[in-house]
Amino acid sequence: MTHHISEKMFGLTQRNSAVREMFEEGGRLAALYGRENVFDFSLGNPNFPAPEKIKEAICGILESESPTMVHGYMSNAGYPDVREAVAASLNKRFATSFGAGNIIMTVGAAGGLNVILKTLLNPGDEVLALAPYFLEYGNYVNNYDGVLVVVPANTADFQPDAEAVRKAITPKTKALIINSPNNPTGVVYSAETIKSIAAVLESKQREYGHPIFILADEPYRELAYDGVEVPWLTGFYQNTIVGYSWSKSLSLPGERIGYLVIPSEIDDFSLIFDAACIANRVLGFVNAPSLMQRAVAKCLDERTDIDAYDSNRKLLYNGLKEAGFECAYPQGAFYMWVKTPCDDKEFCNLAKKYNILVVPGSSFACPGYVRIAYCVSPKTIEGSIPGFVKLAKELGL
Amino acid sequence: MTHHISEKMFGLTQRNSAVREMFEEGGRLAALYGRENVFDFSLGNPNFPAPEKIKEAICGILESESPTMVHGYMSNAGYPDVREAVAASLNKRFATSFGAGNIIMTVGAAGGLNVILKTLLNPGDEVLALAPYFLEYGNYVNNYDGVLVVVPANTADFQPDAEAVRKAITPKTKALIINSPNNPTGVVYSAETIKSIAAVLESKQREYGHPIFILADEPYRELAYDGVEVPWLTGFYQNTIVGYSWSKSLSLPGERIGYLVIPSEIDDFSLIFDAACIANRVLGFVNAPSLMQRAVAKCLDERTDIDAYDSNRKLLYNGLKEAGFECAYPQGAFYMWVKTPCDDKEFCNLAKKYNILVVPGSSFACPGYVRIAYCVSPKTIEGSIPGFVKLAKELGL
Repeated sequence: MTHHISEKMFGLTQRNSAVREMFEEGGRLAALYGRENVFDFSLGNPNFPAPEKIKEAICGILESESPTMVHGYMSNAGYPDVREAVAASLNKRFATSFGAGNIIMTVGAAGGLNVILKTLLNPGDEVLALAPYFLEYGNYVNNYDGVLVVVPANTADFQPDAEAVRKAITPKTKALIINSPNNPTGVVYSAETIKSIAAVLESKQREYGHPIFILADEPYRELAYDGVEVPWLTGFYQNTIVGYSWSKSLSLPGERIGYLVIPSEIDDFSLIFDAACIANRVLGFVNAPSLMQRAVAKCLDERTDIDAYDSNRKLLYNGLKEAGFECAYPQGAFYMWVKTPCDDKEFCNLAKKYNILVVPGSSFACPGYVRIAYCVSPKTIEGSIPGFVKLAKELGL
Repeated sequence: MTHHISEKMFGLTQRNSAVREMFEEGGRLAALYGRENVFDFSLGNPNFPAPEKIKEAICGILESESPTMVHGYMSNAGYPDVREAVAASLNKRFATSFGAGNIIMTVGAAGGLNVILKTLLNPGDEVLALAPYFLEYGNYVNNYDGVLVVVPANTADFQPDAEAVRKAITPKTKALIINSPNNPTGVVYSAETIKSIAAVLESKQREYGHPIFILADEPYRELAYDGVEVPWLTGFYQNTIVGYSWSKSLSLPGERIGYLVIPSEIDDFSLIFDAACIANRVLGFVNAPSLMQRAVAKCLDERTDIDAYDSNRKLLYNGLKEAGFECAYPQGAFYMWVKTPCDDKEFCNLAKKYNILVVPGSSFACPGYVRIAYCVSPKTIEGSIPGFVKLAKELGL
């Protein structure tokens, strides 16, 4: 043995996140050429500021509420009044009837996913992910010795194909992760898509006699354009658990604040809810950050500047099209998913010559594409277009 | 199979934390008798407010720094300037030479412990805990399929016995957790104790030819009375990793903010540091809450009101002694560790009759004692004394 750490973690140190590597590369290039001359589209780190109301809420809370309450421990699930407010806000929007007892405040959506996977998975249990998918799902599932099973992409329009889902299900399938609006494609899964997947899951649940859960990972829910509706999944499928984060919708990614919705009608509801509260504790989260819980509860009707993202979307889309690239016009999130006329990793390397940083599709189990995160300043997009034009020429487009 | 969740988590739902159960019981009794008539000593939730400076720091940051930076992603290890400030503060206090590259900001000490255990443990690896110990260590170790091995308590003075540590070490021992000032006893491990344990570990490292790490869990470091010095462990043993939290020292337990110190001189330093950053990410923490990172960096010289805890300590100690109880005079943390003249769980049940909530020693792998957390208002202590007096009489003291 040449090292003394966990074998799982040793493996991870040998193949670190491509997204994070690009993030570090961005820092290196910025030091060389100046931040304004580097066009870093690698990370989903919103460039638009949190709404002013967040600041007001935080300072207002610190002025008016007791510090021992604001900064103190509470139930592992979170402050009851905050959970009640979240439930009420969901009920108003989606005609549901959740209560505080259906909500667990979490350390972002990543924390929430870990909590629910810890709650559900036995070693060897399978979790389906729909390619292309957020690469961290594999690590989260692996934390609990589950097996991530990838459903191949439907490259026609990146609406997942229910028959492909059916083929991937086995008696060991415990859950399916659905991420819509999707990272990395920007596609919003349609009600039709969801219905067809729900029908497959229902028939497989009957066949095997045990539940298969949908885990809806929804940090991009609020980011949908052109009035497109993002289906609320608990209305389509009984065994749905939703994970949310304010990282993108209120530009608070560093604050690690989100929640899980565990509807009363899911199988084993009480057991799952209780276990998830305990998982939140034993994984070391203990509870979602307390001041930020109280702050977001005061900002449930706030939204980030969706028009700014929309304007970025148009700017980048038009620029890329004019340069000759092929990409779908995304309806949600803040990612452009662009077909590469060469190997996608080679594309990323070529792009670096023009100080453009993007992430290869192979990092999302879907080679032949790149992800361009346009949650950046419009200047970054404008500045990058000449580089994209040169890159297109170099690639013979 | 009668349920559909993780077997590990099912086990945990069947034996929930005694501390947390007491916390819930406190809520129930408060609803029945009024909060002021319930003497809840069950949870380490500081009753003293965070220093005013925390509020000033938070609002000042929100006024003067860019929200995209304050609430944004940064490296998984945390903001470089915050880590540098933490390192500098440690260097000033302990004559060390840490840099930002030795510090990982974490979601509290619980998050930090999970990160380092995830980093180090392979299934079956053993981690030693010194009884009595914080009951969550067992869950943290179990998260990574490690085995917690309990070193029996030295009930003479609750300074751990190095020979007992030696007996517990096997070729599978990966780490030893040291928690001083100690939860639940309030004992500060002496330099002599630490030296004797370090000598045992060093000889065992040589014997087995692999490192055995000390994981120093230090949320109570700042809470020491009578001028007693809390040994800084990296000065005593090379393979020491320190976990810290501002939960107790600045009364911020709900905010989930702390750090790991990974000294450059430990075996496999680079690999362990890199793996710990990745573990922080893949466990779903991603990074310590961002605004709170920036706030604590401005409050590194702030302390909670130690005199208030000290006054509580004297008040409770004198009250308990006069009532006839036997307890050591604790030098640190905010716990009193009291010998029970009957079964410790029975003691806790009897105490409830007087609306007094305490936690049985058996929850810390040390039956025959109870833990009384005196991080409460002095009124709670004063109000509880008549109950303790009656309880002592009932127990024939």
